[in-house]
Amino acid sequence: MKTFDPTDFIPGVSLDCVIFGFDGSRLNVLLLRLRGFDEWALPGGFIKTDEHGDDAALRVLKERTGVSDLFLQQFKTFTHPDRTKVHVQELLRKGIIDENAREYFTSRFISLGYYALTNHNIVKPAPDYLSEECAWHPLDAVPELLYDHRAILEEALEEVRLDLQYHPVGQNLLPKKFTMPELQALYEAILDKELDRRNFSRRVMSYGIVEKLDEHRTGMAHKAPRLYKFKKSAYEKALKDGLSNRW
Amino acid sequence: MKTFDPTDFIPGVSLDCVIFGFDGSRLNVLLLRLRGFDEWALPGGFIKTDEHGDDAALRVLKERTGVSDLFLQQFKTFTHPDRTKVHVQELLRKGIIDENAREYFTSRFISLGYYALTNHNIVKPAPDYLSEECAWHPLDAVPELLYDHRAILEEALEEVRLDLQYHPVGQNLLPKKFTMPELQALYEAILDKELDRRNFSRRVMSYGIVEKLDEHRTGMAHKAPRLYKFKKSAYEKALKDGLSNRW
Repeated sequence: MKTFDPTDFIPGVSLDCVIFGFDGSRLNVLLLRLRGFDEWALPGGFIKTDEHGDDAALRVLKERTGVSDLFLQQFKTFTHPDRTKVHVQELLRKGIIDENAREYFTSRFISLGYYALTNHNIVKPAPDYLSEECAWHPLDAVPELLYDHRAILEEALEEVRLDLQYHPVGQNLLPKKFTMPELQALYEAILDKELDRRNFSRRVMSYGIVEKLDEHRTGMAHKAPRLYKFKKSAYEKALKDGLSNRW
Repeated sequence: MKTFDPTDFIPGVSLDCVIFGFDGSRLNVLLLRLRGFDEWALPGGFIKTDEHGDDAALRVLKERTGVSDLFLQQFKTFTHPDRTKVHVQELLRKGIIDENAREYFTSRFISLGYYALTNHNIVKPAPDYLSEECAWHPLDAVPELLYDHRAILEEALEEVRLDLQYHPVGQNLLPKKFTMPELQALYEAILDKELDRRNFSRRVMSYGIVEKLDEHRTGMAHKAPRLYKFKKSAYEKALKDGLSNRW
């Protein structure tokens, strides 16, 4: 077990990662349960003295979940003066924090929030040395969370929904060739609402990022549905410049 | 002159405010010039030990510009490990920083970025005790900036442009009754591009937040243009829930 040396990190700044995993029908969020706690927490960590916050977020995510190369997006920094006070006292009482890190942890912390949207299947949840469990939880059944992590999760979700308004989504989350109902299921999972089938298809096609293929998904009970794929260069351009419904 | 006591503030965290002012035809940004420097800087400051970051941003803005009640939006935290190093050395050499604050300032700083979009006329720029000048600069003539403030400014501008895609804009920036060309000039100033007159009007009307009045602006050389106003409740709803072109 590696020991935690507080002098490796800048004081008073943490980061928390909200990892959304799409499983084909709904969104899940990756959570850890700390030793001795009933509540769960977002995967998080600290920034090394010479490290960029974005690199710290990738390192933490890799350490705590085994996942690398996720596109992590910083979305907000959480700065309520009392955001960790109560639970840190509990961590200390339960002896989860080493004595040498006591002062480091009892100072006030602000936390940088990052989110990512990924395919449920590529993540192999693995608990870190502070935690007993690491697992996906569907968004409609999130357990009690430590600190202000419920608020961080909700703001991340709002960001993902906003992002959907002006950027494409789906690459790495859907099969290479997908049906329109599969793409719609992704949008519905993110927005948590049903969309009209015809309007959905019309709007998505109007973006110019999806190509209709002359192929159908076979081996299904009903009529074989049409397959689509993303147009690589148009998709990349829209990721960068935004969708074509922008001003 | 008040003295700076570093123990009043949390270490290693600053904030910077990007204040955009619309003057009827273009966007300007509010900048300060520090004593002994040719470069300018964004108005910024630090977070008190018991203060929320958002409250700190409002306090700093009020202290440094005389403006209160701006809607400041936190948009990103800047965390490059060397983002202030070079210029802080220069501040120390020039004796601008008090001896008692030397250690505080030479540590690494991350900075919370905030932006606001306001009416040019309500701001009375006033230099703070560290600076010689405080002034508006048009976005197409921004002088050399200290630290990473050029990057912070550019990211703030990108945020304002994104926000325009899904939220209404104009209240407090335009007269209560405005013409369609006045509203279009605001959009064009933010986007820094010309928009088609007919498409602009059609799209804005489709949001359902603007009401056509049975009045015209008089006293102008040419044909008196039609006046419009925002529908208060629809505008407020769109601020909260987003414009009606959302999924």
